[in-house]
Amino acid sequence: MKTRIAILGYGNLGRGTEAAIAKNSDQELVCVFTRRDPASITLHTPGVPVLSVDVAPEMADQIDVLLLCGGSATDLPVQTPAYASLFHVIDSFDTHAKIPAHFSAVDAAAKASGKIALISCGWDPGLFSLARLYASCILPDGKDETFWGRGVSQGHSDAIRRIDGVLDARQYTVPIEAAVARVRSGEQPVLTPRDKHLRECWVVAAPGADKARIEREIKTMPYYFDEYDTTVNFISAEEMAEKHSGMPHGGSVLRSGRTGWDDAHTETIEYSLKLDSNPEFTGSVLAAYARAVHRMGLEGMCGCKTVFDVAPAYLSPESGDMLRAHLL
Amino acid sequence: MKTRIAILGYGNLGRGTEAAIAKNSDQELVCVFTRRDPASITLHTPGVPVLSVDVAPEMADQIDVLLLCGGSATDLPVQTPAYASLFHVIDSFDTHAKIPAHFSAVDAAAKASGKIALISCGWDPGLFSLARLYASCILPDGKDETFWGRGVSQGHSDAIRRIDGVLDARQYTVPIEAAVARVRSGEQPVLTPRDKHLRECWVVAAPGADKARIEREIKTMPYYFDEYDTTVNFISAEEMAEKHSGMPHGGSVLRSGRTGWDDAHTETIEYSLKLDSNPEFTGSVLAAYARAVHRMGLEGMCGCKTVFDVAPAYLSPESGDMLRAHLL
Repeated sequence: MKTRIAILGYGNLGRGTEAAIAKNSDQELVCVFTRRDPASITLHTPGVPVLSVDVAPEMADQIDVLLLCGGSATDLPVQTPAYASLFHVIDSFDTHAKIPAHFSAVDAAAKASGKIALISCGWDPGLFSLARLYASCILPDGKDETFWGRGVSQGHSDAIRRIDGVLDARQYTVPIEAAVARVRSGEQPVLTPRDKHLRECWVVAAPGADKARIEREIKTMPYYFDEYDTTVNFISAEEMAEKHSGMPHGGSVLRSGRTGWDDAHTETIEYSLKLDSNPEFTGSVLAAYARAVHRMGLEGMCGCKTVFDVAPAYLSPESGDMLRAHLL
Repeated sequence: MKTRIAILGYGNLGRGTEAAIAKNSDQELVCVFTRRDPASITLHTPGVPVLSVDVAPEMADQIDVLLLCGGSATDLPVQTPAYASLFHVIDSFDTHAKIPAHFSAVDAAAKASGKIALISCGWDPGLFSLARLYASCILPDGKDETFWGRGVSQGHSDAIRRIDGVLDARQYTVPIEAAVARVRSGEQPVLTPRDKHLRECWVVAAPGADKARIEREIKTMPYYFDEYDTTVNFISAEEMAEKHSGMPHGGSVLRSGRTGWDDAHTETIEYSLKLDSNPEFTGSVLAAYARAVHRMGLEGMCGCKTVFDVAPAYLSPESGDMLRAHLL
């Protein structure tokens, strides 16, 4: 059984997801929907059509799962409930504070339509959430910390680009190794944002721009930078293109806990990712969960789900017998 | 809702599980069943009875989940199917090659009784199996390796103890860091058993025993030692008691895979455990899954399950709303 998948949105995540689907022999990319002029987009996969999002409803019977590859700020809050009325859908909604409200809106739509809508899929939220859940349930008397990076934060890069006089910017989130080591040792330290991460900024300034002002505006920007040690480096557009065009990321979820009587023993669980391409990896997670959502839908489940609700076996193309014999 | 739990078998794992249950405020240890004389056993938990295993059937309505803490060689193949006829049960059956046969026997019993029987729970099989499953589904074009240790292998220690002239022995499985580093780099090397692990043996010989023969018998023992570089150290009983009485263990599951077109990018997933106490950590996993099995049973599920079949949310005492708001 092939899972017939469509992608809505052909930005970085849409392109990464297209590549991920090609790695799964039991999946087929049916089409890519776009809000742009379809003629302006050329897919990497030969023979797959690019269609206007306006025709998506007519395609419902040809698509098992629709992967929503838009942004969390304005696209997904509208798109996910809307398309959950027509398709099994998956999004990577990642505004942590707004997840409960998003869940409610999507759940109502998906329950009304009898579809499954998996939200907040990817690696954080997603795989890191799973690491936090498993570790906290197994070591209830413990503490966890999540470190991100070294990797490019799109949100922080965008925040710098909005400063007057900035032509381009890239911000790397860098975990502070000394803090990681303390957590890994089982010490359970209390850490401030400044203790955990550095923010490393690479900026192309407009000719004649006041670099001292730009640097000051970055370093004092509330929430994004003011609680961190931040470095700002001005470079040319050429150097930006040459050295900072990749989208690496990663990080670690660490939890240590005490076990035994009198808390005699310390146990440590660590889950780490080292990613050359954040969007290709996130797309790979979406593709694996597309298989799960397709199967869960065939079993008649519906409503809004998260990775917490998906039994791991649903992710695999292998049978239960095979999994028990070879992976357990 | 409290989960009422009983333990069958009060060896290292039974004791570790008793301590783990005490860390979960929504769990209650009802009793410990033993095949020994109950009067010979004193629990750590005050007020909890030790009962003969013969009375277990009479206790069925007072116990939500029975945790089977016996051995995989002879206990669990008999106990798990037998008790799955009366209770929701969990075992830590870890003879990988015999899991399919064990599953079949347990599944028949649990389906007949309408109970849930979760087999092969712990960290390997168990959490490491989950790490392999998630990683292989997300990075289908990849390769994974599992490293164990540094930690005490009971099976290898027992194998040495069976050699004539050996009074006591402890075997540490030691991952070879150079091999771990190669896998972690994304290189996907081909590794033999000898490339991956060292076997470090600490032996108390009987007075007058031929140590050269003992060392030779260890190093040439088929399957256990002959495919590895093995070191043998003879020590006194006092040194054994002083330096080698703990049961540390751990290890890592690593998978790297290629993503993107032309396999342009490498992504690496690593799941690691560092355990002061193997039995207390394994007991902690059993306790978390006891909560899941209790809930799944209340929902009417039955039959033999593995960690692959358990949606992560079932492990947590928190509601779906809380999990989405705070852990996702």
